[in-house]
Amino acid sequence: MMEYNLGKGKYEDWIVSETTFSPDALGKGESIMYLGNGYMGLRSATEEPYLKESRNLLVNGTFNKAFKNEVTELPNLADITRIDIRIDGTRFSLEFGETKEYVRQLNLRTAELTRTFYWTSPQGKELRFSFHRFVSLHNMHLIAMQMEVESLTESVELSFDSGINAQMSNSGSQHFLEGDRRVYDRKFIELIQTTKESNVDIAINTTHNIFVNGKAYSHEPKMNMSRRNVWLSYDMKLEPKEKLVMEKLTTVYTSRDKEFARTDYQLANLREYALNELKAISGKGYSELLHMHQTAWEDNVWQFYNLDIKSEDPYDLLALRFAIYHLTIMTPAHDDRMGIGAKALSGEGYKGHSFWDTEIFILPFFTYSNPEVAKSLLQYRYQGLAGARRKAQENGYKGAMYPWEAAWPTDGEVTPLLGDVDIVTGEQTKIWSGLIEQHITSDIAFAVYQYYNVTNDHDFMNKYGYEMIFDTANFWASRLEWNDEKQEYHINNVIGPDEYKEHVNNNAFTNYMAYFNLKLAMYYYKSLHEVNSEVLDELNERLSLLDCYTDWESKASHLYLPTPREEDLVIPQDDTYLQLREIDLSKYKNQEQVRGIYKDYSPEQINEIQVTKQADVLILLYLWDQTFLKDDIRLTEEMKKSNFNFYEPKTLHDSSLSLATHAILANDIGKTDIAYSLFKEATEIDLGPNMYSSDEGVHAASIGGIWSVAVFGFAGVRLQDKRLRINPCLPKHWRQMRFTIYWKGQPLFVTVTDSSVIVEGKTDEVLEVESFGKVYQWEGYLEIPRKHSN
Amino acid sequence: MMEYNLGKGKYEDWIVSETTFSPDALGKGESIMYLGNGYMGLRSATEEPYLKESRNLLVNGTFNKAFKNEVTELPNLADITRIDIRIDGTRFSLEFGETKEYVRQLNLRTAELTRTFYWTSPQGKELRFSFHRFVSLHNMHLIAMQMEVESLTESVELSFDSGINAQMSNSGSQHFLEGDRRVYDRKFIELIQTTKESNVDIAINTTHNIFVNGKAYSHEPKMNMSRRNVWLSYDMKLEPKEKLVMEKLTTVYTSRDKEFARTDYQLANLREYALNELKAISGKGYSELLHMHQTAWEDNVWQFYNLDIKSEDPYDLLALRFAIYHLTIMTPAHDDRMGIGAKALSGEGYKGHSFWDTEIFILPFFTYSNPEVAKSLLQYRYQGLAGARRKAQENGYKGAMYPWEAAWPTDGEVTPLLGDVDIVTGEQTKIWSGLIEQHITSDIAFAVYQYYNVTNDHDFMNKYGYEMIFDTANFWASRLEWNDEKQEYHINNVIGPDEYKEHVNNNAFTNYMAYFNLKLAMYYYKSLHEVNSEVLDELNERLSLLDCYTDWESKASHLYLPTPREEDLVIPQDDTYLQLREIDLSKYKNQEQVRGIYKDYSPEQINEIQVTKQADVLILLYLWDQTFLKDDIRLTEEMKKSNFNFYEPKTLHDSSLSLATHAILANDIGKTDIAYSLFKEATEIDLGPNMYSSDEGVHAASIGGIWSVAVFGFAGVRLQDKRLRINPCLPKHWRQMRFTIYWKGQPLFVTVTDSSVIVEGKTDEVLEVESFGKVYQWEGYLEIPRKHSN
Repeated sequence: MMEYNLGKGKYEDWIVSETTFSPDALGKGESIMYLGNGYMGLRSATEEPYLKESRNLLVNGTFNKAFKNEVTELPNLADITRIDIRIDGTRFSLEFGETKEYVRQLNLRTAELTRTFYWTSPQGKELRFSFHRFVSLHNMHLIAMQMEVESLTESVELSFDSGINAQMSNSGSQHFLEGDRRVYDRKFIELIQTTKESNVDIAINTTHNIFVNGKAYSHEPKMNMSRRNVWLSYDMKLEPKEKLVMEKLTTVYTSRDKEFARTDYQLANLREYALNELKAISGKGYSELLHMHQTAWEDNVWQFYNLDIKSEDPYDLLALRFAIYHLTIMTPAHDDRMGIGAKALSGEGYKGHSFWDTEIFILPFFTYSNPEVAKSLLQYRYQGLAGARRKAQENGYKGAMYPWEAAWPTDGEVTPLLGDVDIVTGEQTKIWSGLIEQHITSDIAFAVYQYYNVTNDHDFMNKYGYEMIFDTANFWASRLEWNDEKQEYHINNVIGPDEYKEHVNNNAFTNYMAYFNLKLAMYYYKSLHEVNSEVLDELNERLSLLDCYTDWESKASHLYLPTPREEDLVIPQDDTYLQLREIDLSKYKNQEQVRGIYKDYSPEQINEIQVTKQADVLILLYLWDQTFLKDDIRLTEEMKKSNFNFYEPKTLHDSSLSLATHAILANDIGKTDIAYSLFKEATEIDLGPNMYSSDEGVHAASIGGIWSVAVFGFAGVRLQDKRLRINPCLPKHWRQMRFTIYWKGQPLFVTVTDSSVIVEGKTDEVLEVESFGKVYQWEGYLEIPRKHSN
Repeated sequence: MMEYNLGKGKYEDWIVSETTFSPDALGKGESIMYLGNGYMGLRSATEEPYLKESRNLLVNGTFNKAFKNEVTELPNLADITRIDIRIDGTRFSLEFGETKEYVRQLNLRTAELTRTFYWTSPQGKELRFSFHRFVSLHNMHLIAMQMEVESLTESVELSFDSGINAQMSNSGSQHFLEGDRRVYDRKFIELIQTTKESNVDIAINTTHNIFVNGKAYSHEPKMNMSRRNVWLSYDMKLEPKEKLVMEKLTTVYTSRDKEFARTDYQLANLREYALNELKAISGKGYSELLHMHQTAWEDNVWQFYNLDIKSEDPYDLLALRFAIYHLTIMTPAHDDRMGIGAKALSGEGYKGHSFWDTEIFILPFFTYSNPEVAKSLLQYRYQGLAGARRKAQENGYKGAMYPWEAAWPTDGEVTPLLGDVDIVTGEQTKIWSGLIEQHITSDIAFAVYQYYNVTNDHDFMNKYGYEMIFDTANFWASRLEWNDEKQEYHINNVIGPDEYKEHVNNNAFTNYMAYFNLKLAMYYYKSLHEVNSEVLDELNERLSLLDCYTDWESKASHLYLPTPREEDLVIPQDDTYLQLREIDLSKYKNQEQVRGIYKDYSPEQINEIQVTKQADVLILLYLWDQTFLKDDIRLTEEMKKSNFNFYEPKTLHDSSLSLATHAILANDIGKTDIAYSLFKEATEIDLGPNMYSSDEGVHAASIGGIWSVAVFGFAGVRLQDKRLRINPCLPKHWRQMRFTIYWKGQPLFVTVTDSSVIVEGKTDEVLEVESFGKVYQWEGYLEIPRKHSN
């Protein structure tokens, strides 16, 4: 019934395509082929409507709270993609008539979506359709669409309605007041929306350029308006071989845009500006605009990241390009007041909120290969300090306690308090993560540390980084609980990365990362004191750090760190995990869909079983390995192995964040085949054959993980003890790998071949690069012979 | 392409049916076959979804303002009608496969909607479907549905999703907070909605009873939940000749219900009550519930109104029954805090607001044939006095100035201030009717007068009626403007019933009705003073009426009443109408759709042409004829004729209110053929072949007009000078007519035959009945020989 050519069969290594139209499984293509540029994301719903479609246009940062009992989210803007097409008066739909040679494809290189097919109407008339669409990387406010219709055999009456429809909502929750709608010169359609709580104005303008057989079509359209909706109706007759070309050009501006976020902002100025911009763009036409867009992708993305692999399976390169494509379009590189949503800009899932997903799974891509963007994302967290401090205060703590879910930086914690209803009891389940999943605070500290060590960006640290580190440490210092019996500090009642386990004590990840955060603050405090007391004095004054150092020191030195078991070096995930009962998990390890265990066990029962949602201790080892504290737990290869071997079989990967970490760890310990198979699994979360996995949007962290497995895993790149380490261990059928990373502000062009690792670049400095235990001096060119593991 | 059997061809005189399914013209059937009981209205969208459907469930009185820049309206409740059916895993839709013997019909007698057809799936499997549905008149909170599916040739996998979906909105405007959803015992689904501004709680409960081959189906369904949505999924295998019967029973309760509108109201009580009620009902099953419903219709409607005609064209009787059906289901007979919406409860049009439509076009049906309901509707206006007084004050007047559009009684004026945008200039057009269409106030006074004279309900007058009359007169007394030059009172800058003309002076309808209102107040004041000074004293005190009488008297005696022209007795519609230019209107008189003239002329131009949207002077003559003031303008047959002949050719009937009045007037002046053809036209506003005329809902006033033309027109029943007049003049092919009216609280059974009028009933009193100028004494039985006009 359903055939979908993603991840298997027919594709090229730049093309994600489908060759069957599946009206009952539209979410897949809508999400994974979605278009965007970091400013906005446009879900790829087809022009003609279908019952099960989800049309989404999301603009980063436009958060609003629709109703008092809901949480803030990215609102779904008015739609401009729907075009109601009639052929001889009958609605055009691929559910009727006969469709041949159907191909929809996203070209990752050009970031253009196309859809072409031949269609025979129920009345037997044959037509050729061709749709093109892109969201410009050159002009971040621009959406361009093109529709071609050619009548092949008979004359047809063709008509279509196209405009701006603000009847859209977020699954029924409406964020926008009814706004002005207007048509200028029977050509330029304008629709204004204003969010009802956050007062963000949106100006959407659209226009059509229409050609029949290459000539401008001059008949005036009919103008229509209904509640929250405005559109033009065109109709024409196409003789055999005649071709309609319709371009629809749309711009989106909002009062959140940096240009307009000023005290003297007026909607009238935004409107005028937006309309004039569209008028200017309108003269250019689709092809010229596409050219500028493609050039931007070529220069700013593909040349810039310079990623290539030679693999026997071209899918691997496709998956990596898919990752870079999505990492580019999900990220608001233009605005440091905005973060990355867990579902990127591809759907309503997770409401556009940022989680630790960003710092742990996505940010490393930017830190290592586009530090300017990484800086912007960390500045977003810096701007979130006010909200983090408020959260700490509200919870009875000091310092900065970062929100588990973040939206607009000043919003603070936006995790919903209540989740889905337990369908049987009718009680809404309480969502605990906003209260007790606290490791996000040290995850952000880690990200700052990683960023600084990779980039050497002192300016960032002076302005933002130190303050974040000190105030997150202040949170932990206030958070620790003294255990009188054991005479040590504990962290009780938390959720660690393994969200199957709620209300645990001394989650290893949480405790170790809190310890890292405290030690990091001490380390920076001391070094600032020595080399940059001016900055320290300013911070001392502003944050009242006077007694903090001794507090951090005494807290850190008495913080309980779950000790590896002597017999096998396994670190207990928390105080009780190792004592929980074990069950046969094979049924759930091989599950087709996530959350299979919930069909047999209640959440309370799962809490009492040695089963883990995602790598918990393993992520700890992965991160800890990159810090200056790795010796605190004698982090060895053996320790990684034993923990991997212990926890992996207990881990169901019910979070899309899990597979990538496991893959990297597996590679680290020499299990390259397992690593490769976990890599494949990670890519298939979105690119795979499960037609419903991406309905709510793509999995942003998992996409970050795809790149991470390749570069941190297979290529073995890692910040280690402030030094760049490159320990490549490519999958068997990868013969070569190439990529660019930035190290201390310098681009390094890395090539891994069968026999060596070549690191090239321009440099004024000598850097040290470690490879397989040996330290090399790098002065612009370095070729290191590869050691093959196993 | 489209075939629709309403009003022509195949029907019986109880059945409104369609035999072709038209997925692109769903609004027609959804509206005119909508179900209801005055408490709620359920638009008849099909179970399986289609792109162009409008699903509406509206509960009277649940008004809410969705956003600050919108006006209050009836919110669209969660939907329970949609059922997603899959046959062998594929979505069932009449747009696929082959459909045979398709019939959807509304049986007016039983008020049950059924839909039956044979359907061959695209895979060639044959099934029989049968859907039944009613909204109970016995239990006004109950909606019952039944679905039968029989596999005829092969075994099929049948599955369906059914539940409660609160993602509905009013064209994108969401009125409800997200509320609790719950499933009890895997059987009873509950969804709570609360309006965000008016805080009305809605409890919707639904349950399924499922039988396969007559046996209860015991497999437990899958439970599902998403944002604002909860549903069960059933699946089963049907072998050839096996039949599924699924009943879906739903109850709707709200905190607006009289039972719950108390100070000690708590949502928990409403929830408990609603759930228990559903559980109790669930045991009864569809058939038993249907039987109670049908009995209610038979007893309370068809036997009660007792309307019958013998016509050569059975369509005529169908149309009259259609009118009574809709008059019954649109009217909140159960609750005097609620009025009738201009589109009844059948769609979002006019937002559920009440206009003068009620008093002038709908109320007379109830006043004459179900006075208890008429009283409830007038009490709704009595409760609206506070809002009317506020409106007067806000506009600088005294007394009670009724809102042009009314919603919840205390809301006052709810006419939107701005209407649709002029699509070219982008300016929103100002809606003037809420400010200057002021005749509604005297229309309500007229309705009270009519009600009192027809019913003799002194109690109503003492408690409510006099107060309404006096305070509306107070409004007019303060509203009149002294014209110094003419030494008389004028009413400037108004809109009369002819809404083509805005900002006119001395609109005849407005001035005469204001005069009537003042004179009526004087008349009642005097008679109260004489016979019931207790009531008057109380009112005197409460309304400070002390100097009012002299004020009314001096204002009325100096109020300018546009004088009939001497040469032809034509009453000028306003100060300038007769001087406006005339154009050839034939093009627009024969228009297929309304508002044709707007395609050639701008509103400003239409303002300057002798063209009328609807009967304006003619409605005046029709109403005035029923008052004690008819001699003030020497209202003669000749005058009616000349004004009919003058205005009718200038009237485009661009309001659905217009045709009925013209038909009655035409009949009054002996033009029975024209009257009959106008009657037909009036019935076809909803029942006719225009597939899009009812998209926004049925035309409530026009439906009231259908009954009015029959009883006031053809049967010639009229309140005249406090006396019942019966001057029948049936259309040529109507041989007999029968109906019941209530006169002074007594039911009169009227039969009009070719030769006579028979009036029967039980009576203790002697009444006078006038027929063709002669007065008869009625004492239980009266047979009057008919005079045939022409």
